[in-house]
Amino acid sequence: MLIVMHHHATVEEIEAVQAAVKALGFRSQPIPGKERTAIGVLGNQGYVEDGTIRELPGVLEVIHVSKPYKLVSRDFHPCSSQVRVAGVGFGDGLPPVIIAGPCSVESAHQISTAARLVKKAGARILRGGAFKPRTGPHSFQGLGVEGLRYLRAAGDEVGIPVVTEVMRISQLEAICRYAQMVQIGARNMQNFELLKEVGKLKMPVLLKRGLSATLEEFLAAAEYLLAEGNDQVVLCERGIRTFETATRNTLDLAIVPLVRELSHLPIIVDPSHATGRRALVPVMSKAALVAGAHGLMVEVHPAPETALCDGAQSLTEQGFARLMEQIRRMLPMLDES
Amino acid sequence: MLIVMHHHATVEEIEAVQAAVKALGFRSQPIPGKERTAIGVLGNQGYVEDGTIRELPGVLEVIHVSKPYKLVSRDFHPCSSQVRVAGVGFGDGLPPVIIAGPCSVESAHQISTAARLVKKAGARILRGGAFKPRTGPHSFQGLGVEGLRYLRAAGDEVGIPVVTEVMRISQLEAICRYAQMVQIGARNMQNFELLKEVGKLKMPVLLKRGLSATLEEFLAAAEYLLAEGNDQVVLCERGIRTFETATRNTLDLAIVPLVRELSHLPIIVDPSHATGRRALVPVMSKAALVAGAHGLMVEVHPAPETALCDGAQSLTEQGFARLMEQIRRMLPMLDES
Amino acid sequence: MLIVMHHHATVEEIEAVQAAVKALGFRSQPIPGKERTAIGVLGNQGYVEDGTIRELPGVLEVIHVSKPYKLVSRDFHPCSSQVRVAGVGFGDGLPPVIIAGPCSVESAHQISTAARLVKKAGARILRGGAFKPRTGPHSFQGLGVEGLRYLRAAGDEVGIPVVTEVMRISQLEAICRYAQMVQIGARNMQNFELLKEVGKLKMPVLLKRGLSATLEEFLAAAEYLLAEGNDQVVLCERGIRTFETATRNTLDLAIVPLVRELSHLPIIVDPSHATGRRALVPVMSKAALVAGAHGLMVEVHPAPETALCDGAQSLTEQGFARLMEQIRRMLPMLDES
Amino acid sequence: MLIVMHHHATVEEIEAVQAAVKALGFRSQPIPGKERTAIGVLGNQGYVEDGTIRELPGVLEVIHVSKPYKLVSRDFHPCSSQVRVAGVGFGDGLPPVIIAGPCSVESAHQISTAARLVKKAGARILRGGAFKPRTGPHSFQGLGVEGLRYLRAAGDEVGIPVVTEVMRISQLEAICRYAQMVQIGARNMQNFELLKEVGKLKMPVLLKRGLSATLEEFLAAAEYLLAEGNDQVVLCERGIRTFETATRNTLDLAIVPLVRELSHLPIIVDPSHATGRRALVPVMSKAALVAGAHGLMVEVHPAPETALCDGAQSLTEQGFARLMEQIRRMLPMLDES
Repeated sequence: MLIVMHHHATVEEIEAVQAAVKALGFRSQPIPGKERTAIGVLGNQGYVEDGTIRELPGVLEVIHVSKPYKLVSRDFHPCSSQVRVAGVGFGDGLPPVIIAGPCSVESAHQISTAARLVKKAGARILRGGAFKPRTGPHSFQGLGVEGLRYLRAAGDEVGIPVVTEVMRISQLEAICRYAQMVQIGARNMQNFELLKEVGKLKMPVLLKRGLSATLEEFLAAAEYLLAEGNDQVVLCERGIRTFETATRNTLDLAIVPLVRELSHLPIIVDPSHATGRRALVPVMSKAALVAGAHGLMVEVHPAPETALCDGAQSLTEQGFARLMEQIRRMLPMLDES
Repeated sequence: MLIVMHHHATVEEIEAVQAAVKALGFRSQPIPGKERTAIGVLGNQGYVEDGTIRELPGVLEVIHVSKPYKLVSRDFHPCSSQVRVAGVGFGDGLPPVIIAGPCSVESAHQISTAARLVKKAGARILRGGAFKPRTGPHSFQGLGVEGLRYLRAAGDEVGIPVVTEVMRISQLEAICRYAQMVQIGARNMQNFELLKEVGKLKMPVLLKRGLSATLEEFLAAAEYLLAEGNDQVVLCERGIRTFETATRNTLDLAIVPLVRELSHLPIIVDPSHATGRRALVPVMSKAALVAGAHGLMVEVHPAPETALCDGAQSLTEQGFARLMEQIRRMLPMLDES
Repeated sequence: MLIVMHHHATVEEIEAVQAAVKALGFRSQPIPGKERTAIGVLGNQGYVEDGTIRELPGVLEVIHVSKPYKLVSRDFHPCSSQVRVAGVGFGDGLPPVIIAGPCSVESAHQISTAARLVKKAGARILRGGAFKPRTGPHSFQGLGVEGLRYLRAAGDEVGIPVVTEVMRISQLEAICRYAQMVQIGARNMQNFELLKEVGKLKMPVLLKRGLSATLEEFLAAAEYLLAEGNDQVVLCERGIRTFETATRNTLDLAIVPLVRELSHLPIIVDPSHATGRRALVPVMSKAALVAGAHGLMVEVHPAPETALCDGAQSLTEQGFARLMEQIRRMLPMLDES
Repeated sequence: MLIVMHHHATVEEIEAVQAAVKALGFRSQPIPGKERTAIGVLGNQGYVEDGTIRELPGVLEVIHVSKPYKLVSRDFHPCSSQVRVAGVGFGDGLPPVIIAGPCSVESAHQISTAARLVKKAGARILRGGAFKPRTGPHSFQGLGVEGLRYLRAAGDEVGIPVVTEVMRISQLEAICRYAQMVQIGARNMQNFELLKEVGKLKMPVLLKRGLSATLEEFLAAAEYLLAEGNDQVVLCERGIRTFETATRNTLDLAIVPLVRELSHLPIIVDPSHATGRRALVPVMSKAALVAGAHGLMVEVHPAPETALCDGAQSLTEQGFARLMEQIRRMLPMLDES
């Protein structure tokens, strides 16, 4: 931690800051400059709460050098992690994993049809929502446990694992029974109680970035999971909220190589929620893989024009098959970079 | 809903869109223009999912006219609502309610001291966190139910009700027992399962705006509460996330008169989390009241320099007393505007 | 400047960074920590370009302690500055200055009518655009020099100075002839060539904050003016661009007390462009003054329903007169805070 | 244009709006709904100023269907445009154009060395700044016309055209003499006077997206150039400003396929300014090409550690050569998509 003093800070003010640092159990090191003095804080083993210092007289600002995460950091875990979901592996050196399926499980027939078509095209995990987060209370809220059963049956039918989103802690038991991977959605990325409970499971987790989460907060959210003992975490970039409204969100692809530099966890990309427009999904899927994503999560629906949610961003069977074919042709190029 | 067609959309494409609107059970009304045709959708009783239409050939964009909320709207409930918390009323025509207290309940002594000082200065509700949302898992997480007991005892001691934040559904029972108002924090504004459960309570709710929530999403989150039957909802603006880092968040004060225009629910302002800096809290408190806020939520700590969280934004006893004195002198001016 | 090294940085990497600091002519001071080493840079007299250091092996990040401005900083100029425009003074201890008038000068008659009505209500400077920045090239672009003449004549008629916006350097000569204060608009806040030329004038300047300018960039833009010798600068907060679209921009009122803390220059607020909605202008005007603004710039039009631009955010004669009356009643309260 | 009325709007209010529409010379078409009435505006030939209507009693909001641009729109110009810079073509069906070179021209020797290395690796246009926009006035501001001469000499030496940024109108004459393409930087994207002057030239233009410019504003800025007669315009995405600070800006790659859908103009990507970090430039360069960019603008410096600006984001000779080799191997894949 570095404490930057005002230009006109007095010797007494500097000494008071040093005393406060000492009271926290750390050592301080003044760094006099021509314009102002800064005070380095030494001896801390991680992030220090700055509340007691930031408002002392003469303090201009407090700069954190330590990060609010450690277990997810490559600094302390240099080797890349692999995460396995019922035999499907995410991580460095493995081919990208394509997760596909509809936004919501709508019926046994719909999810079974979806499972067959995404498996046929090459998807290795089936997605489908049984509990749905919707902006307004008057929209379709999902089939619940019945949806979970349909989802698992559809996955088993074609022989691939399934992932589904958890919305509340009490759903975890049923999700553990039916799904092989649990998803924490963007709106729950800082639902810390949910993170703690999922951290106690032995189940792989797909953690989506919050709409307004910084990279630091995203990694700190994953830290909650690892701190509870669950290190089977796959991160997912799905677009952030910005002033631009031409796309549903702004896909922040540069975060992919940055996460790979700072963390050992795998990261995938969801181009469907990021763009919100079917026409942009294939091209951004390919760009994401070139940017280094360890996989994709793509919305595919047997009949998007009748979908109960997110139809506008779902690929059709033909569209998805074409994308998968293009991805297959890209694979050799991805290997060599 | 209005469907805007491409300049070059064909007659067949326009007719296909009209057929799709009809299939949804609505009527359509083409509005030909010189540059392009738009198609109005009539007969819907609220927000329509546009997924089946947005990606039809020839469609440029779909514009929603209906809002994803109705019960919270002044359109359908022209009279302003008042919300009462154990005798303390929020709303038009009532004096602004000042909620004050520490970020966290740290001990029986600390919260009792805080209660006495905020009550003495004129606060009418005591705040204090027993369950704390923290960005990283290694920070202080609150005293839990013990904290709730201390909080209530402190409130009872000085004769004012207390408000505290809920972090997970299973905490609601204890919170109902000890607190007179429950707070849903910014990070949980779109934790829809929590919203639904709180909506089933008979308890007043303080709903904070999410860091990246639009006004429309904020009101839609409140709609969840009202849709479940709880209309004792006070909204709270607490700053949004923008590119500006000089303050902790960007306080969006203009939302206050706008909420008052669009909704019948009361709205208050939290200048402490919005600015993150003690020195800015008094001036922004006063600005918030002038902007029309029905109250304030202010962090006050008996000894901010030892606070376990958010010390940098907490007012001292003297600072809070001075602010309350200034607010008292402002009251006649607020009345007349 | 503080250079933060990776956790696993080697002794050689740390020494290489120290050598690079020395090559820049500064001294370095390592600050070893338990997690990582940081290196303080000493001896610099202001902002240092970090390009040569940021990408050296083992460097995690570079943190700037010095600011890219100095002349505008209160650190180096503790006394508050006053700026005078033909006898009208902005600054601490002076009553707030209300600048009012239409978005554009549309005709001699229109601006003369506007001048009379704003002066009558108590405005002390008349505004009016002769050269207009418009998002699209097909919108009304202003009357040019003819508009300047009308504007000045209208100001002289009622005895108040006038302010108008410059769009290009070649307009400065005419603006100097006709106006008593020149405005640099939000879109030109980082038009550095324009800043330099205006910096060479002896004329008071109204510098508006850019739509996406941080506080630091805003002050650095003002630094351009002062660096060229013009210290007659009034800053103007006019809303920033965020994800929220319910208002035209997001008025960042907390910046007002912050600018007053960090800089000696006066700052005013433009609630018309910030909100874009007439109904919000009066309430946000009053909130701005309570937040500490040294004045306001308000759009007023004799007949907003016929305005060639920004009619929706312009006050009518009655609306402005009512606002001015309310401000007058607020003045005693502003004095004592 | 669509005018949405309040739920409780009266018949008189609706009629008053219709009268106002008529006064503007257009026809109106009420679209009654169950919740509220909307009024379609017909007969307009492009964007209509809504100021006279938006604040009429009973109006909830005004929605624009027409766009503030037309000449740049694919709606009115379905065939993709190609832009040629001294024999180098940008556009559909042409190989991507790589523009490379240092941020600033620092000396004849430096730019000559840079020209040789970028040409050798396969760049087809040389970039180099002679006039530099800098956040603070105390930073290096460029060599001016002398820099232009060095730049052109370096380009001629290796046989490739050069592009350089204009900062003020008076520089255009010299830039026309020395450069084959003129760049309008992000900070000047809405410097409308500069746009108008560049629009009068016969020279190809590289127009960078503003830091906080929406796609609509970006295209409207290009419209200024085409409206003045210059249709030799290449657009450039270079990152937007968001809350995320882990990268210098947030690269909005999804805008690339969207611009290709909405406009006929070519679009390239600048990964150097977008990310601000050398390590991210190669991977995001490749992702940009896969996203459909017609080219790249990459900062390359013979000795980044001595660069006078932006050294941290400049590739070295080796880094650039490696990237170009990777791009060459990607080309067949780009062709087929």
